[in-house]
Amino acid sequence: MWTVKVVGLGVVALSISVELLGWLLRRLRPGRILNEVLFFPSEMACVEHIFTPSLPHSCLCPLPHGVETSFSLLLRHILSASSSLDLCVFAFSNMDLSRAVLALYGRGVTIRVLSDKDYVAITGSQIGILRKAGICVRCDVGSVYMHHKFAVVDSRLLITGSLNWTLQAVQGNMENILVTEEPKLVQPFVKEFHRLWARNDPAQRHR
Amino acid sequence: MWTVKVVGLGVVALSISVELLGWLLRRLRPGRILNEVLFFPSEMACVEHIFTPSLPHSCLCPLPHGVETSFSLLLRHILSASSSLDLCVFAFSNMDLSRAVLALYGRGVTIRVLSDKDYVAITGSQIGILRKAGICVRCDVGSVYMHHKFAVVDSRLLITGSLNWTLQAVQGNMENILVTEEPKLVQPFVKEFHRLWARNDPAQRHR
Repeated sequence: MWTVKVVGLGVVALSISVELLGWLLRRLRPGRILNEVLFFPSEMACVEHIFTPSLPHSCLCPLPHGVETSFSLLLRHILSASSSLDLCVFAFSNMDLSRAVLALYGRGVTIRVLSDKDYVAITGSQIGILRKAGICVRCDVGSVYMHHKFAVVDSRLLITGSLNWTLQAVQGNMENILVTEEPKLVQPFVKEFHRLWARNDPAQRHR
Repeated sequence: MWTVKVVGLGVVALSISVELLGWLLRRLRPGRILNEVLFFPSEMACVEHIFTPSLPHSCLCPLPHGVETSFSLLLRHILSASSSLDLCVFAFSNMDLSRAVLALYGRGVTIRVLSDKDYVAITGSQIGILRKAGICVRCDVGSVYMHHKFAVVDSRLLITGSLNWTLQAVQGNMENILVTEEPKLVQPFVKEFHRLWARNDPAQRHR
């Protein structure tokens, strides 16, 4: 009788331990959190399939097709937004990145763009195009540079680094981008975006 | 007799479980890894106590004393290096940051500095001063910008963001710095530094 009880207790204890271990591993394992680094210049490749995944072979441009590059990965992370994209970028002239932002806007994603006043009006700036499409844009009007280059996707994923959203940065310069879901890195950027967004509210400025 | 055995087994199982849980928590807990964000412009404050911690009240400058700022935290992270500092920065003119690098060099820390060729010779650049002190400096000679702004401390701690190592960036602009020990973020930068360092070896270029 005792043997049965001991074996029974052992089995129960073992099951609970295995469950608890599994739960702990799932809960605490750092691998659960996305942490990725992208380096630039990016290899040149067609990104049409990222915008129109239903037509993978529709593009006839001379660039290599079906190649995953730093830039295509960056586009995929931006396009993963399902509810919001908060963008705080010094210079924004890259047309593919602009197309991604416009595509998200077309899907009903809430977009907020904060940019530096000095770079809004330069040749090739995409800020005017975003604004014309109806996207809410604010410009930092301080006397110094708003030098950030970060985006927060769905208040969950941070994309930040040295890379301005320009063609020169993507295809020419040596640059880096960190993509992370680590809350200790994401949350301060969420908070900083809110602070800068409120500070550059034109309605507040004219009161 | 059975009761004693069961209780004994229970105590042993409990001890092992507690040990295992403690080990798992220590091993897997994300909180173990440093992840910090610093925003700029930094509040202006004296940083003398960071360089000479043995003389906390020795400075008579008019700046506030004993205040921890984004900049003082950045300096502390850089000065935490005990074996190596790999620095890859577009523009480097900040004298306090230069002083920190020189202090590390004086302590025997192995320093490697990689900078952009166009910014090495600008007014106030600290690159010449570091080179004169004996620090190994290489300049990226490509036709595009080496636009990174990162440092790797002891191949363990990554310091990266939008902030160039200039006075304007620290005291004027809106900027960010991420400080992280997360291996998935640190290791790619360690590898990229090695790649760029080797690529810009003057001995290799002239062969």
